[in-house]
Amino acid sequence: MKTLQEIAELVHGRLAGDPEIAISGATNIVDAGKTDITFAVDPHIEEAAVCKAGAVIVPDSVKSFPRPAIYVAEPRVAFACLLEVFTPPLRLHTGISELAFVGKDTELGKNVTLMPFAVVDDHVKIGDNTILYPHTYVGQHVTIGADTTLYSNVTIREYCRLGDRVIVHSSTVIGADGFGFTTQDGVHTKVPQVGNTVLEDDVEVGAHVGIDRATTGSTIIGHGTKIDNLVHIGHNCHIGANNLIVAQTGISGSTIVGDNVTFGGQVGTVGHIEIGGHSVFAARSGITQNTPEGVFYAGFPAQPHQEWLRMKAAIKHLPEMAKRLRQLEKQLAQYEKEQ
Amino acid sequence: MKTLQEIAELVHGRLAGDPEIAISGATNIVDAGKTDITFAVDPHIEEAAVCKAGAVIVPDSVKSFPRPAIYVAEPRVAFACLLEVFTPPLRLHTGISELAFVGKDTELGKNVTLMPFAVVDDHVKIGDNTILYPHTYVGQHVTIGADTTLYSNVTIREYCRLGDRVIVHSSTVIGADGFGFTTQDGVHTKVPQVGNTVLEDDVEVGAHVGIDRATTGSTIIGHGTKIDNLVHIGHNCHIGANNLIVAQTGISGSTIVGDNVTFGGQVGTVGHIEIGGHSVFAARSGITQNTPEGVFYAGFPAQPHQEWLRMKAAIKHLPEMAKRLRQLEKQLAQYEKEQ
Amino acid sequence: MKTLQEIAELVHGRLAGDPEIAISGATNIVDAGKTDITFAVDPHIEEAAVCKAGAVIVPDSVKSFPRPAIYVAEPRVAFACLLEVFTPPLRLHTGISELAFVGKDTELGKNVTLMPFAVVDDHVKIGDNTILYPHTYVGQHVTIGADTTLYSNVTIREYCRLGDRVIVHSSTVIGADGFGFTTQDGVHTKVPQVGNTVLEDDVEVGAHVGIDRATTGSTIIGHGTKIDNLVHIGHNCHIGANNLIVAQTGISGSTIVGDNVTFGGQVGTVGHIEIGGHSVFAARSGITQNTPEGVFYAGFPAQPHQEWLRMKAAIKHLPEMAKRLRQLEKQLAQYEKEQ
Repeated sequence: MKTLQEIAELVHGRLAGDPEIAISGATNIVDAGKTDITFAVDPHIEEAAVCKAGAVIVPDSVKSFPRPAIYVAEPRVAFACLLEVFTPPLRLHTGISELAFVGKDTELGKNVTLMPFAVVDDHVKIGDNTILYPHTYVGQHVTIGADTTLYSNVTIREYCRLGDRVIVHSSTVIGADGFGFTTQDGVHTKVPQVGNTVLEDDVEVGAHVGIDRATTGSTIIGHGTKIDNLVHIGHNCHIGANNLIVAQTGISGSTIVGDNVTFGGQVGTVGHIEIGGHSVFAARSGITQNTPEGVFYAGFPAQPHQEWLRMKAAIKHLPEMAKRLRQLEKQLAQYEKEQ
Repeated sequence: MKTLQEIAELVHGRLAGDPEIAISGATNIVDAGKTDITFAVDPHIEEAAVCKAGAVIVPDSVKSFPRPAIYVAEPRVAFACLLEVFTPPLRLHTGISELAFVGKDTELGKNVTLMPFAVVDDHVKIGDNTILYPHTYVGQHVTIGADTTLYSNVTIREYCRLGDRVIVHSSTVIGADGFGFTTQDGVHTKVPQVGNTVLEDDVEVGAHVGIDRATTGSTIIGHGTKIDNLVHIGHNCHIGANNLIVAQTGISGSTIVGDNVTFGGQVGTVGHIEIGGHSVFAARSGITQNTPEGVFYAGFPAQPHQEWLRMKAAIKHLPEMAKRLRQLEKQLAQYEKEQ
Repeated sequence: MKTLQEIAELVHGRLAGDPEIAISGATNIVDAGKTDITFAVDPHIEEAAVCKAGAVIVPDSVKSFPRPAIYVAEPRVAFACLLEVFTPPLRLHTGISELAFVGKDTELGKNVTLMPFAVVDDHVKIGDNTILYPHTYVGQHVTIGADTTLYSNVTIREYCRLGDRVIVHSSTVIGADGFGFTTQDGVHTKVPQVGNTVLEDDVEVGAHVGIDRATTGSTIIGHGTKIDNLVHIGHNCHIGANNLIVAQTGISGSTIVGDNVTFGGQVGTVGHIEIGGHSVFAARSGITQNTPEGVFYAGFPAQPHQEWLRMKAAIKHLPEMAKRLRQLEKQLAQYEKEQ
């Protein structure tokens, strides 16, 4: 329970309304009741003006608001902070469960938690405060940093390396074999995949993501990159820092991606290309060749977003264009006859 | 073993042929032998007329059939019933395995089965007859109804709720964190995802499905909805009742879907839209805006199916249209010269 | 550690350079140091000519190379062989772990490895030298051949059959229920899925793949077929031998595929079609009908690759075509006025 005054100080906001209003929760506009705080940005300001929340966090740019409010530059950021303040943390079973399996020659940091049936194989190092949920499997010679969380059923295959503050969601597989074969007379023979996968600090990986190990060397996910569910990243990829990779995207092997790239959902790339940093690829883009820095692309093959919009608009008129073309042909045929 | 007479009564069908024929199994047209029953609907009636099955279930509308047959309104439904009759159920290891882990303050109903290495964390409630396969993880404060089955390696994260008669296939993850970040100076900061996911009664979820927990409030899957493999459902979605969501479809966050909607395979949607009930979206549809009730859409961006067919047909003729356009230009240029 | 002479003999290559050069590892061009061997094919020959590797495997067709080299017909094949030679195998915890669960009436071959928390249910047969990683679940009445590896968190549901030398990567699910329902008055009722899934010899399956069990009979993956991550294969499919199925592809139920077909990434097919052998489908193809043997298709709907390229080129010029069409209409209108 906090007063509105206390909350305003916490989020460095400007308070408008009774500073003594008592707030015990943070939630969305629809669910918020009179002891909750919520937030609103365009186009939801009007909806928030008539909601039942005890108070609303709104952008500085809003001129007036008819209910108790806290004005801040970034309402989402302030609200995210309050979600943390008002949500009681889970009380996990900390420490090394007697039901976990720990192999030989391992180094576990302080306050490491291994839940029941977690498996840490031989020669593994794990940093302080790292948490492994049930049914995680950490293969031989893996190194994991501090303050990292592996949710249930995660697999980290042998020799992979994870940094600090990494989060890996359930059922994700780090370091499965890359898809590499040689083919002779129609028969495919496996190329051993003896490299590894590296997740740098502050990487978050969703559920059911596969990031394959390199054939040799490392598949690398740069620091601060966030990956959504059901994403595939092929062997030998080097993904830069602070990327956002939305659900069901597939990045083919040996692709090199710069920093701060956003891939919308269901994007695909061919392999062995370089994608420049600070770019955005709209959902469903199919990237078929190298792309420069700082682009906003869409479509398959991916092209500048504006061109893609023009093309899509033109395609919509195509049946009508076909009619007009036939009409012109008729007219001309008529002329020819007449002359 | 049942006689054809007994089977006809079971499926409320009209028998044509020897009522004493002995049937011991139900299978497809190709595999069926003389002690099996199979079924046929268009366009497979002729194939069934010469198959080796002891008897065939056919639609009422078939006028004559040269082999022992049972006539019913819905052959598929009758056959599904017989599959159940003729398949001996697995004899599972029922009860609470000594190798399962059960946390504190849990309530387990009658006849609950926890197989080896299932994990039920603290404060969990599970209804009667519910079955958890090996390596399932049920997080703290989860509630699961009666007659529900979680197959191996399923994860249900904390605070999620599952109804009665729910089926969740292997490796599916219910309630992983939604993909929510605030970005300042190119660095992404996690927005806590403190809501949950709710699966209502009679929901079935395939393998490798991710249904993310809401930021606040609930991500909801309405009763009777069936979800195929490798589907992604983003945080805060409200999916209606009796939807069919085919494999590899992705529904972005905060999307609201009505009842009885069918999404073909590999469909995608943008987030924050409303999709009207009783609609069908063909495979690969990309839904980019609100859609009304009762539509049949296809394409990306999704549009009425008939329009899409016309557009696709027109595109096919595009190279030829380009030629005709050049021809017209030439003719006109010729005229200009002549005049 | 091997001499260049020894390596040349191993890969049946022609040596050029000091036969006594000592090599202790095999890796890629960028990472290779002076005690490593690497390989190069076009367009990487020039890069390799100035790399730091102790020696380079190059194609016979290269006329001269300025560094110690081994000339072979297939550098990739030779290199794959050396990766195996130079990578020390993991020393797994072999044998049946005391922490594994083995049901009743099972037959385990010689040298079978069950790692901690592997579960082998009743009536299972497993061949010699087969390895089950932690948290694998093998259902009742399953048969698995010899020299097969199931990585962590793999599920093999009841009655499925796996051949010899099969590899299944983490979190993959073999034999989950197919997506089959009958619908009456908008309510979907499950059709029991009482068939199984069969993986023939030498099949490799990536992470997060779902291959559903047949309604009746078997879903079959032919020998030597290799499947990448996040692939969906629906119930009753019969996939031929030596296919390559790249990541995120979805093959709908009851599809029959010939031998030696390659599906690029993110391909989709409708169900109940036949796809001829020895064909290639480019990434993102959407296959909507039967296709003959030996084709190279692309696009959605899939069409011959050359036609697809022409169509994509024509679409790119569509906005410009629209302009030219308007220009023609103006000219003609002008003529009409003048005459």
